[in-house]
Amino acid sequence: MNFRSDNTAPAAPEIIAALTRVNAGAAAAYGEDQWSKLLDEKFSALFERDVRVFTVASGTAANAISAASLTPPWGAVLCHREAHIECDECGAAEFYSGGAKLVLMDGAEAKISPAALKEAVARNERGIHSVKPAAVSVSQTTERGGVYTVSEISMIGQVAKEAELGLHMDGARFANAVVALGKKPADVTWRAGVDLLSFGATKNGAIAAEAIVCFDMARAEEIARRRKRSGHLFSKGRFVAAQLLAYLEDDLWLTLAKRSNGLAAKLAEAAAPYLSHPALSNQVFIKPGKAGLAALRAGGADFYEWGPPGAGEARLVVSWNQSEADIEKMCGLLVSIR
Amino acid sequence: MNFRSDNTAPAAPEIIAALTRVNAGAAAAYGEDQWSKLLDEKFSALFERDVRVFTVASGTAANAISAASLTPPWGAVLCHREAHIECDECGAAEFYSGGAKLVLMDGAEAKISPAALKEAVARNERGIHSVKPAAVSVSQTTERGGVYTVSEISMIGQVAKEAELGLHMDGARFANAVVALGKKPADVTWRAGVDLLSFGATKNGAIAAEAIVCFDMARAEEIARRRKRSGHLFSKGRFVAAQLLAYLEDDLWLTLAKRSNGLAAKLAEAAAPYLSHPALSNQVFIKPGKAGLAALRAGGADFYEWGPPGAGEARLVVSWNQSEADIEKMCGLLVSIR
Amino acid sequence: MNFRSDNTAPAAPEIIAALTRVNAGAAAAYGEDQWSKLLDEKFSALFERDVRVFTVASGTAANAISAASLTPPWGAVLCHREAHIECDECGAAEFYSGGAKLVLMDGAEAKISPAALKEAVARNERGIHSVKPAAVSVSQTTERGGVYTVSEISMIGQVAKEAELGLHMDGARFANAVVALGKKPADVTWRAGVDLLSFGATKNGAIAAEAIVCFDMARAEEIARRRKRSGHLFSKGRFVAAQLLAYLEDDLWLTLAKRSNGLAAKLAEAAAPYLSHPALSNQVFIKPGKAGLAALRAGGADFYEWGPPGAGEARLVVSWNQSEADIEKMCGLLVSIR
Amino acid sequence: MNFRSDNTAPAAPEIIAALTRVNAGAAAAYGEDQWSKLLDEKFSALFERDVRVFTVASGTAANAISAASLTPPWGAVLCHREAHIECDECGAAEFYSGGAKLVLMDGAEAKISPAALKEAVARNERGIHSVKPAAVSVSQTTERGGVYTVSEISMIGQVAKEAELGLHMDGARFANAVVALGKKPADVTWRAGVDLLSFGATKNGAIAAEAIVCFDMARAEEIARRRKRSGHLFSKGRFVAAQLLAYLEDDLWLTLAKRSNGLAAKLAEAAAPYLSHPALSNQVFIKPGKAGLAALRAGGADFYEWGPPGAGEARLVVSWNQSEADIEKMCGLLVSIR
Repeated sequence: MNFRSDNTAPAAPEIIAALTRVNAGAAAAYGEDQWSKLLDEKFSALFERDVRVFTVASGTAANAISAASLTPPWGAVLCHREAHIECDECGAAEFYSGGAKLVLMDGAEAKISPAALKEAVARNERGIHSVKPAAVSVSQTTERGGVYTVSEISMIGQVAKEAELGLHMDGARFANAVVALGKKPADVTWRAGVDLLSFGATKNGAIAAEAIVCFDMARAEEIARRRKRSGHLFSKGRFVAAQLLAYLEDDLWLTLAKRSNGLAAKLAEAAAPYLSHPALSNQVFIKPGKAGLAALRAGGADFYEWGPPGAGEARLVVSWNQSEADIEKMCGLLVSIR
Repeated sequence: MNFRSDNTAPAAPEIIAALTRVNAGAAAAYGEDQWSKLLDEKFSALFERDVRVFTVASGTAANAISAASLTPPWGAVLCHREAHIECDECGAAEFYSGGAKLVLMDGAEAKISPAALKEAVARNERGIHSVKPAAVSVSQTTERGGVYTVSEISMIGQVAKEAELGLHMDGARFANAVVALGKKPADVTWRAGVDLLSFGATKNGAIAAEAIVCFDMARAEEIARRRKRSGHLFSKGRFVAAQLLAYLEDDLWLTLAKRSNGLAAKLAEAAAPYLSHPALSNQVFIKPGKAGLAALRAGGADFYEWGPPGAGEARLVVSWNQSEADIEKMCGLLVSIR
Repeated sequence: MNFRSDNTAPAAPEIIAALTRVNAGAAAAYGEDQWSKLLDEKFSALFERDVRVFTVASGTAANAISAASLTPPWGAVLCHREAHIECDECGAAEFYSGGAKLVLMDGAEAKISPAALKEAVARNERGIHSVKPAAVSVSQTTERGGVYTVSEISMIGQVAKEAELGLHMDGARFANAVVALGKKPADVTWRAGVDLLSFGATKNGAIAAEAIVCFDMARAEEIARRRKRSGHLFSKGRFVAAQLLAYLEDDLWLTLAKRSNGLAAKLAEAAAPYLSHPALSNQVFIKPGKAGLAALRAGGADFYEWGPPGAGEARLVVSWNQSEADIEKMCGLLVSIR
Repeated sequence: MNFRSDNTAPAAPEIIAALTRVNAGAAAAYGEDQWSKLLDEKFSALFERDVRVFTVASGTAANAISAASLTPPWGAVLCHREAHIECDECGAAEFYSGGAKLVLMDGAEAKISPAALKEAVARNERGIHSVKPAAVSVSQTTERGGVYTVSEISMIGQVAKEAELGLHMDGARFANAVVALGKKPADVTWRAGVDLLSFGATKNGAIAAEAIVCFDMARAEEIARRRKRSGHLFSKGRFVAAQLLAYLEDDLWLTLAKRSNGLAAKLAEAAAPYLSHPALSNQVFIKPGKAGLAALRAGGADFYEWGPPGAGEARLVVSWNQSEADIEKMCGLLVSIR
């Protein structure tokens, strides 16, 4: 019963099949192949407007290139204190941006509020002596399983626009958020003010396929250069393109996320008395205490502890391919430690 | 008849099979899976000593992380004027290193000589006012199809050692060089003074699998951090590890390179009167003049022109899967324009 | 009655005289002149051990070069939330270091405690996924007028040593701290574990003279390069050297600081009922409320408000040349608003 | 007889006097003082249009901030192979720009030609795989004592405009060029297409006063941030402002340069048979051979050898305060070795 992370999961058979299918004959390198060329079109259809899509090797790359493209080196990227770009990317945003600063905000469920954003902007606008607020980054879903509503993002987008901040969305688990919200991708992103989206597929069934979806065409050239310069332009582009095309085809991405969200809801129900947060997507945060966690482990569950050391809190992540048996057994365990 | 580049080729069936094979069940993320953990061992066996292996998404990343790990920001990386790191990576080495300078040398077949290196070091050691020579980077095979002999590399390694330069080898086509030389990988690298090797597999049959082979253990921690920080640590590491394991298994990498080298030799023979350089690996440089190139194109050949615009020179690259039919037909064409 | 900052003050006559005195005949450029060459010797005597001294144009440069020399680009520099390097240098530390992260700590009087440092290190040691704690920076005096005791610095130095962090001291107002403590410069710095000191003279009577005092000889070469590369190596080095030599001569630096500290103490006494912090050096923080501040302004006082907007708090800084008349009048005002 | 460089000279008495004059009372910090505020006005009058002026501590800083403001990190700055920014600034342009590349051109007298520039642009426009030509930097006077005519700069400016390159002028010895040309500063700079000028005063009589003169208002905000972030915004701005104001007053800058240019012309006449280049400003390049140089040294002359080691070539730089006696004696020596 591995609930450590959805990146421990294998790839979906449809993804493997697609990758195998394109493996024939010569194809132009560096994204000039026929499949890579389809990406803009397919994503534009998905997002109901013209977009440019830039595949990269990891979510860290997607996030850092995005952040760097929204801030000058002397800028600040405002984000939640628990944001992946702050905590888990070894300073990638700082590296790619040439030394921008991450300015941190608090907020329940690892979400930032429009008010907190407004306040952080005001606090950091001190002229030439301080860095200049230039961008805001939100995670959707968040690192605590939170999901911004369309209205929440729109309000953040509004504050960002007024303060002339670019708005980046870290969508490492974007599919899970879209499913949770039951909204169109466009509503959750550019219609709410998002400029750049890190569109993740790896955690939800791909091998290694992440993309920057660019809604602000003025940034496209810069992103293209940053991608090449950082070694994230694949020479054999067809293989990453194939993954993403298969991911979108017949809404595979939503099907997979719907499944993991649904199974996570079962876990959450079983763990209801000691849930840390509402479980809206495929992440479930529980706080049964140290003894509770020990009991889960003794029962065969594998997961990461979360929060401050010794807090007795844990994160359970349901993968796209998690077995029903896993879930059933885990539910039993979760109930048993109530 | 596509001779544009070996990165237009598909992946070898063995590689695809390996990737499919590891696609089952959960596996630890970020290189902690069982396959990734085999890499150090397998490459250590291959290189006849302890090495550390760091997979990345592209040759550009391997080169730039290597260069950055061998030079301070105020250092100079000495390389050939036609080196890939200078011409084709959008300034990746400068980006990763925090602004080091590439100092360029000339030399036939895009090779640098020990004498040229010595001279370049001397010319650039001007104290604090200039950048400090810190590393040298050689391509094996070179961007002109040249192959350094073991003795040549050793002499460069000797100069590097005396001048306290790190020595990096860009082995995007390392397999082709090893086959051409008929030497052991160890002899071509660390025994000759190489500190870091960009070990390329993508061009020679992989999907996307490049690795930094680290012979200088003191650099390993730094490389690990630079990789993570630049977004080149794959979360689902098993898939890139599987490619490399398959690549080495039963000497697949040498088998594939032997084939492409051999077919290239046939092209070279057919083009003998107007060869630009000896064709030692899977690259053939020809200079039949503009009319000659036009005739080849008219005959169905696809390739890049090379050198100064209008020079009537071209590069033909033979891929691991190039068909015998392609080669035969191309040989005929090449003879016909003599 | 200008109490905005000690950097609004002119230069001491001794400094101007020294600068004028060296202005004769040719002198070697770039620090090879006879006066610059004295710096190492004079500062070594002052600090009772061999040191290397690097003059730069500003405290920001001294701090940023120091920070960069103590951390790799993927490192973290731990400092107080109100540290000058965090709040007032437009991201200089991030720029010079190639994108290191400042990790912030809280603490009264803008001082960090050994315990807070220990905790911050522990919280940020999460392996390759996060930045790596590499250095700690303390301000002496602090941005809230705090002064670390020798014992406090030693304990921080001890934690730093155990955690393998470099220790930087921002001594923009180092003279005021030394006077306040009545200790030897050596006791306050390297004997307590400080590796690099930003030694400020500008605020305390110089024109523009700041220096990095390097106690860790292994860093000297790197600092020299960083200084040159950032344009902080003066070509006519004699003029900055002359300032520093005069600053040290006959303890001018201590004389000036003693005076401003003493006058500040008078202000503090007058403002005793609403002091925010103990006034140990030449900075006095008062919190008489909005009306009180308005009354001070109406009485002719000029100063910066401090803390959150509208908090009714202010900072009064006494300059080396502040007139007794200013102080007397200001004391009267401060008493009048009790 | 010190002819090593004009930066070995002291400061002009007018400069020292000005600095002393402003040393009274409190003055706003960070360029908000009354003298700093005059700079834009005075330089605007000098250049016959609105300009923004940014003082910095060194020519290296002026050059590097300028270069960085004209190129993205993935850009190329095109300059002469012997340019100061390439050879003598320890990679400052690379540092400030976040890793841009300097692309080198050849040309007599260290001047670049419009044709060479055009060719270099064309050669480096290879799409996303190479860095992108973004700026060109010319030195006026050049590192070989060359002086671009207004027409030459205009033609370079025209090529730059067509290729969408920013044009930077390194005017470390701008005064000497203006005197040599007998043209208005405006004609030599913005009217000819220059976007940013490093306006040097240090070599020609100041203590340490260099300025970026910004003709492209859209870059001003960026330059202001880069200056602050690199520690080049002086807190006591009055002292550098005073130097520059005095430098311009009554055309002191031209008077001083006229003198040194004139004295250099005498040296050049005496060295006519073995001049390397026409001596148009205050630099004289001679190539009397190794024996000739030895004779000059034996006669008491101090200077740098120039060009490749052992070439028997030297540079003589005349300072603003060089004595007539020095010149007379040197002329005698120069004639004696004919």
